[in-house]
Amino acid sequence: MVSWKNFDELASYKKLEALGDKVDIKTAMAGESGAERVAKYCVPMSNGLVYNFASKKVDDEVLSVLQGLADEAQLTEKYEALYNGEMINTGEKRLVLHQLCRGQLGGDVIADGVNKRDFYAGVQAKAAEFANKVHAGEITNADGEKFTTVVQIGIGGSDLGPRAIYIALENWAKKNNAFKMEAKFISNVDPDDAAAVLASIDVKHSLFVLVSKSGTTLETLTNESFVKDALKNAGLDASRHMVAVTSETSPLAKSSDYLAAFFMDDYIGGRYSSSSAVGGVVLSLAFGPDIFARFLNGAAAEDKLAKNADVFKNPAMMDALIGVYERNFLGYPVTAVLPYSQAMSRFPAHLQQLDMESNGKSVNRFGEPVNYVTGPVIFGEPGTNGQHSFYQLLHQGTNIYPLQFIGFKNNQTERDVVIQGSTSQQKLCANVAAQIMAFACGKDDDNRNKYFAGGRPSSIIVGDKLTPETLGAILAHFENKVMFQGFVWNINSFDQEGVQLGKLLAKKVLAHETDGALKAYSDLLNI
Amino acid sequence: MVSWKNFDELASYKKLEALGDKVDIKTAMAGESGAERVAKYCVPMSNGLVYNFASKKVDDEVLSVLQGLADEAQLTEKYEALYNGEMINTGEKRLVLHQLCRGQLGGDVIADGVNKRDFYAGVQAKAAEFANKVHAGEITNADGEKFTTVVQIGIGGSDLGPRAIYIALENWAKKNNAFKMEAKFISNVDPDDAAAVLASIDVKHSLFVLVSKSGTTLETLTNESFVKDALKNAGLDASRHMVAVTSETSPLAKSSDYLAAFFMDDYIGGRYSSSSAVGGVVLSLAFGPDIFARFLNGAAAEDKLAKNADVFKNPAMMDALIGVYERNFLGYPVTAVLPYSQAMSRFPAHLQQLDMESNGKSVNRFGEPVNYVTGPVIFGEPGTNGQHSFYQLLHQGTNIYPLQFIGFKNNQTERDVVIQGSTSQQKLCANVAAQIMAFACGKDDDNRNKYFAGGRPSSIIVGDKLTPETLGAILAHFENKVMFQGFVWNINSFDQEGVQLGKLLAKKVLAHETDGALKAYSDLLNI
Repeated sequence: MVSWKNFDELASYKKLEALGDKVDIKTAMAGESGAERVAKYCVPMSNGLVYNFASKKVDDEVLSVLQGLADEAQLTEKYEALYNGEMINTGEKRLVLHQLCRGQLGGDVIADGVNKRDFYAGVQAKAAEFANKVHAGEITNADGEKFTTVVQIGIGGSDLGPRAIYIALENWAKKNNAFKMEAKFISNVDPDDAAAVLASIDVKHSLFVLVSKSGTTLETLTNESFVKDALKNAGLDASRHMVAVTSETSPLAKSSDYLAAFFMDDYIGGRYSSSSAVGGVVLSLAFGPDIFARFLNGAAAEDKLAKNADVFKNPAMMDALIGVYERNFLGYPVTAVLPYSQAMSRFPAHLQQLDMESNGKSVNRFGEPVNYVTGPVIFGEPGTNGQHSFYQLLHQGTNIYPLQFIGFKNNQTERDVVIQGSTSQQKLCANVAAQIMAFACGKDDDNRNKYFAGGRPSSIIVGDKLTPETLGAILAHFENKVMFQGFVWNINSFDQEGVQLGKLLAKKVLAHETDGALKAYSDLLNI
Repeated sequence: MVSWKNFDELASYKKLEALGDKVDIKTAMAGESGAERVAKYCVPMSNGLVYNFASKKVDDEVLSVLQGLADEAQLTEKYEALYNGEMINTGEKRLVLHQLCRGQLGGDVIADGVNKRDFYAGVQAKAAEFANKVHAGEITNADGEKFTTVVQIGIGGSDLGPRAIYIALENWAKKNNAFKMEAKFISNVDPDDAAAVLASIDVKHSLFVLVSKSGTTLETLTNESFVKDALKNAGLDASRHMVAVTSETSPLAKSSDYLAAFFMDDYIGGRYSSSSAVGGVVLSLAFGPDIFARFLNGAAAEDKLAKNADVFKNPAMMDALIGVYERNFLGYPVTAVLPYSQAMSRFPAHLQQLDMESNGKSVNRFGEPVNYVTGPVIFGEPGTNGQHSFYQLLHQGTNIYPLQFIGFKNNQTERDVVIQGSTSQQKLCANVAAQIMAFACGKDDDNRNKYFAGGRPSSIIVGDKLTPETLGAILAHFENKVMFQGFVWNINSFDQEGVQLGKLLAKKVLAHETDGALKAYSDLLNI
């Protein structure tokens, strides 16, 4: 039986507080002791990945207290409760089952009278069958012509994750002949978003995937109408160009407006839904169902590692614990995510939602205010681009912000060029290695303008290549990291009440039911 | 004569410290007092824009002290010194002349024996002439065919600003028949970046703009070779497909490898270079020189406003001062930039560089450590997308982060759809108005999970439509804001020594001249 206690009620909290900021990485990472740390502070992930935290402000003592925290907070027991179907999302009184899309981690989970693993696998099979028929030309437009483009209409979790994954695998798929259809995404209620996407595609050969769990998301329904208008204006029957990803109880589920409907349920939140039909339909259409299955397998392998109680065998838990230590005891409010891979350009935006929407909370899972800080701000851009941009502040600014690097030994397209004795990929990797050391150890200089204080912590995930499997594993790593941090903070990482108030007030503005400053702002914006 | 003093040496510093966190915006923004603040705390910008800061934690007393700070720190005098050609970039001993690309703000600036306004205007004229010839089919590929695509090869400031501007104006230009050529951008040393761009274009009809001031930027030269290989493999003469934007003293300047060279100089830093040939060549090719000129005119009008000593007539200075108050006395380390405009999707990434690379410094302009915090972390995504993502943390997280909204009354494409009685554009605007009030005033609720504390400050820039002029004005607003903040903090906002150490260490890695942890990381990455 797990016990849900606030973080500051745990003995480990006091121990971490007593430890404080004790590791000087500028010293620890210098010379041979640094090389030893790189070898020692490394946790194997699945799919040939490793999580290396040598440049974090930890030592054996800190890690021992963090292991104690993991045990005391019953992190793996709580994970077990989650995947076995306990009601972990206390705010909305829901199970939390996104991992179940990827594999059976524990016992059967029966909810609403159905075995949920069978349900998710069934939806995936249906999406696979549909995608195969589209690719084979068995499902076509009214003139019997093949669809060439798939357009996802969704926002938030129905957009960021699937879009980041699509961009991450597009070049890989083209190289490996797994590329089936170009994918586009419409998300913003800004009409210029839909207009620009529609102007860039051939609607007659496009299939639209409308994604809304409730079937009531303002942006998504508005964009659906926008798209339907465009189809109608092109003389096309919209119902032959649209499928829905929605819950069984939504108004969209049984509508004849769609070629097909693929179901999601209340047990998978938007930001965790890339592994469900939300990602599955569009990605199976874009790359083929086999590629999406490989992505899920990559994630499933990482989910299994998260069961280990030993932090040295559980990379997500290690990452989570170090992050908590940095946030609550070292006082760092921000973490930068820096993939050295252009294909991962939108992955930081996805992680930003995943982390900030999950753990940006001030109350515990019972709705009581907590007395400690919770989730950090997450931002990031791919390297080396960021090096020529905001890294200046990270190196020489007045505050320290921890960094999460990601790097791969090989590039996706296997196309490269040798300049000055090295390939571009080698230059890319050399830069990430160099940055870690520059941040950790800095550089003395009598000219204070060229002085680097160092002592700026980072970790790195290293893989062989960005593939469906490694991408799935990295995604699961971060999902599980966020989950473990939520457990430590004793918050509910699976609801998002903070998005409601704005929606409510926007409706009032549109209904012209405003006064005071809200009316004044509405007037300013000419609404 | 201006006097350069550290911020904490000023009397205003003590006054602001004494004021502390005095304005409760939850109360101030409620009821009719809120409406009065929206009317009163609004500074006109150029080109029909306004900067409204009603929801910032300021009142007349705070604003009066901030005006005193502006006077005491001689902000407009320092700006005057800058645009009249004093050596403001003390680290690199250079003038700072990006505003001069946009217009003559003060006296003639003579440097290196030339009138710099004439120099910049001359380069613009040359770029305009070149672009017109390309558009007219007078400059063509070897087969006499028109170029249809322009590809910018550059990184950091040679990429983020021009790319953000291109994306911001692409739909507008297509709607207004000002669209001439599609633009693409190659920046990352990751070989998959160049490979993906090259796979998406028809190289035979593509013109490449190589941008490197020094002519030595690793990423850019590497990508140039990558592109030259592709041109060669396509049987094309690379020198007929490439132009250079570089300094007169760079090895690229006189090379026969390029159709033409357009000059930049040391007085415009990369992140301020969108107004120079760095932005001018690619944007004149993409949209035509007239559109680029309109963009510059928009910026020039905003630059003029920045001369006003009265903070109520100087929106950039007002914004800067409020930001300093928030950073140094309210303790906020992060600012989110949230444009309610999909076209501005990459503008936050540009501002992130502009702000963090300029003001992420720990030493003053004389190289002495400062005792106060300087530049904040900047991040952002367009609304309404962000509402379905990280806004949760902004509303209900344990920390407060100030927000910078941007909104427009009309959309660019003038294509829209009415759903439930309102257009998408009205929904977009209603949402930004609603968010400001939700952040400021929050909402009481007995269910603490649905409780919003409020008290979260924001400002908004409102315009009629995103056009070349308004985009130029908004860009100049932020450049000038960052400049004024750098003056207050007494730092040099125009160098970037923080990027050097990583470059140095990366060279060592590539030369295999490493030991200790750097060697260990290099091995981990298989370099």
